Amino acid sequence: MSTPSGGPRPLILVSNDDGISAHGILALASALDGLGDIVVVAPQTEQSAVGHSITIRDPVRAVAYPFRIPSGSILSWAVEGTPADCVKLAIDKLLPRIPDLVVSGINQGPNAAVNIIYSGTVSAATEATILGIPAIAFSYCRWNGGDFEASGRIARIVSVRVLEQGLKADILLNVNIPDLPYSELKGIRVTRQARSKWEESFTERKDPFGRSYYWLSGTFVNLDTGDDTDLGAIEEGYVSVTPVHHDLTAHGFLDEMQSWDLEH
Amino acid sequence: MSTPSGGPRPLILVSNDDGISAHGILALASALDGLGDIVVVAPQTEQSAVGHSITIRDPVRAVAYPFRIPSGSILSWAVEGTPADCVKLAIDKLLPRIPDLVVSGINQGPNAAVNIIYSGTVSAATEATILGIPAIAFSYCRWNGGDFEASGRIARIVSVRVLEQGLKADILLNVNIPDLPYSELKGIRVTRQARSKWEESFTERKDPFGRSYYWLSGTFVNLDTGDDTDLGAIEEGYVSVTPVHHDLTAHGFLDEMQSWDLEH
Repeated sequence: MSTPSGGPRPLILVSNDDGISAHGILALASALDGLGDIVVVAPQTEQSAVGHSITIRDPVRAVAYPFRIPSGSILSWAVEGTPADCVKLAIDKLLPRIPDLVVSGINQGPNAAVNIIYSGTVSAATEATILGIPAIAFSYCRWNGGDFEASGRIARIVSVRVLEQGLKADILLNVNIPDLPYSELKGIRVTRQARSKWEESFTERKDPFGRSYYWLSGTFVNLDTGDDTDLGAIEEGYVSVTPVHHDLTAHGFLDEMQSWDLEH
Repeated sequence: MSTPSGGPRPLILVSNDDGISAHGILALASALDGLGDIVVVAPQTEQSAVGHSITIRDPVRAVAYPFRIPSGSILSWAVEGTPADCVKLAIDKLLPRIPDLVVSGINQGPNAAVNIIYSGTVSAATEATILGIPAIAFSYCRWNGGDFEASGRIARIVSVRVLEQGLKADILLNVNIPDLPYSELKGIRVTRQARSKWEESFTERKDPFGRSYYWLSGTFVNLDTGDDTDLGAIEEGYVSVTPVHHDLTAHGFLDEMQSWDLEH
């Protein structure tokens, strides 16, 4: 298959945070088979919840990894590092040229609402965006098992569109796919991140030596019932597509702050 | 000293990402001495560049730590975890009550422009903000050594103001202090995050067994020369105060995306 635009074959970098042997990354790379040259550079081990972590105090290693998609073997490396490390290293050292698209996922479990900032899946896409490359993060809203078939089809549709149209600078797409068969998906909805939080409750236990340790758990609380949110779309059976940026300035608060007399 | 408002003594949680034994956190806790009950909960080891990483696959431990500020010993724990872990664990398990303010730092080195998203210092403040607590991140714009005296004075001024006035929900302050004596600081400027990126260049080396490894390095590139930016303020000798949120939705792009025909 030639490329959507008929130009030179696009180079597509595939990464994730569940690790290179996860089902989701195989589903993603396979779903994009034929859209261009596909290269997989992903963490050797699961890196969930690493957020936008990068490795600076230690070296990172990359080893060739046997990765097969339907059309055959593709270039692939397993990296001892975080998703952001993978994207940085791929672009600086491992890829033959600058990629046309970076896709991340398909994550096992949603990445919506406040969880976007903890997400290694989104972080790989964020890193690409910082480097000026269009990027998409895909998550399948089911925590274990299931079938990535519908998610893969959606990933292909959205990726083709971004390859054709590009994306505005500094913006990535965060895509969450409900746990439904493809034929039962209601459609695709453009959404905003829902306001939400985790109500923490660490479990406290004693180790065999009598010392305390804590294990993070908690209850997710949606503070935002708008049906224009990512959570609202997913709940109603729509694929949620949220444009995400990394400008963390609270622009709406700048004027109010100017009136603060901070100097004394 | 009583509290600024004359009410009950505020509880102030101090954390950081350079680790509990760093000079900067001692400077910060000491600078706030007298403003309320101060408790330090910080990573046992340096956690720079962890971004908004949290520990979910492993337990975290907290051990009592001997922490002294000018007025005497204070409650303190060293946590085997990330800055975000520290704030979560402190609020859920270690503190006697919900804190009135969370401060993070004083980081050794600036946290401005794109580096905010890699910053563990800012991450501790972000976690507090998600949990509904006013928070401030402080960074001293010098990578090694120096004198935290001016930074400490600024930290106290800004903290008093936030204790008195509060902060808007979902917004934290990211404060960067230039490497100048207090008397030479030009003032305090409210700023936005500068657009910028790192141009990566991984150094490739061989280990003693002949295997390649890569070490991240790179050149910081400021893409944004506005004097209303954090980088602009710091360069001109002003303390930079940037209001930071964690709403990652690119709201300005939502309308444009509605016209995409994603369904086919």
